[in-house]
Amino acid sequence: MAKNDARRIELADAGITVLAREGSRGLTHRAVDAEAGVPTGTTSNYFRSREQLITGLFERIWQRLAPTPEDLAIRASAQPSRELFADYVRDIVRRLTTNREVTLALYELRLEAARRPELAASLGERQRAGLDADVAFNENAGLPGGRAEIALFHYAIEGLVFDRLTSSIDPDTPTDDVVDALVDGLLPR
Amino acid sequence: MAKNDARRIELADAGITVLAREGSRGLTHRAVDAEAGVPTGTTSNYFRSREQLITGLFERIWQRLAPTPEDLAIRASAQPSRELFADYVRDIVRRLTTNREVTLALYELRLEAARRPELAASLGERQRAGLDADVAFNENAGLPGGRAEIALFHYAIEGLVFDRLTSSIDPDTPTDDVVDALVDGLLPR
Repeated sequence: MAKNDARRIELADAGITVLAREGSRGLTHRAVDAEAGVPTGTTSNYFRSREQLITGLFERIWQRLAPTPEDLAIRASAQPSRELFADYVRDIVRRLTTNREVTLALYELRLEAARRPELAASLGERQRAGLDADVAFNENAGLPGGRAEIALFHYAIEGLVFDRLTSSIDPDTPTDDVVDALVDGLLPR
Repeated sequence: MAKNDARRIELADAGITVLAREGSRGLTHRAVDAEAGVPTGTTSNYFRSREQLITGLFERIWQRLAPTPEDLAIRASAQPSRELFADYVRDIVRRLTTNREVTLALYELRLEAARRPELAASLGERQRAGLDADVAFNENAGLPGGRAEIALFHYAIEGLVFDRLTSSIDPDTPTDDVVDALVDGLLPR
């Protein structure tokens, strides 16, 4: 990896930490410099505007929450079934909850989008491309569920993970059991 | 209403506006004073600490998002059915999306809870009491769905409303149609 790319990633990761800890209002170029332990002005050299910083963070969040090639390889040869679908969903939820800081940063950015229509437009575009990819993945894997159902899973999972990472209405029910109940109800037979 | 109570509500409403617009990090006693157009120090007189301010805001958010007696009266004599349940859920989603600022303030407070365990404990306690009340309401109305299912609706609805108020993966599907699909899948037959 080029040295510049490594530095961009390092700064983006520092930005994610700042976002999760301080909220979007705490996200400034200087705060990212401080978090990364680099000279003041470094983050501005890599991400000129706050827009560019946010876009960079969003891309990095996306990368860090994506399944690794190993994650995908585990199930690549499995027979398509409802159980396999549930397995994928449990895995997504596990990634989102264990990468707590990254997921909180994503919620922070999306809340900032509620205040800034141009950010909502660009995040929304990226999310819709992600939904397209999810639908294509599901189809290629021969799994049940089309676009409408996968959107339902997005809502339910994002709400569930939000609950688990913030203040929970039902902390005693294991998260995997909730996922199973969602698959049971929402995945077409 | 006593004059003090009216003033408390006025300040809490100003606090909700600040939270929705600035995020939780922008929520200070001074910012609430400025938003409410009252002399500096007024908010501190009513809500001594930041904790007390947040508790006051949370209670006010709860009040503003609750159904009005008129909302409840409309359906009080209706026969229990899946359609009636769907009607209630559509109504909740409508309240959450139309009271945009209030709902965004709630998401902001819950994200702050992710950073502060003591806040997560007190918000969580209040939310669990709310879930208990939802379960009791459903039972009294003779509607299908117990505690586990109502928790699923909480997750799905909170995720759906978050999507609709921030950046959306599927802005073209009417929200009521999504609610109907959720009820269709998640409400036991």
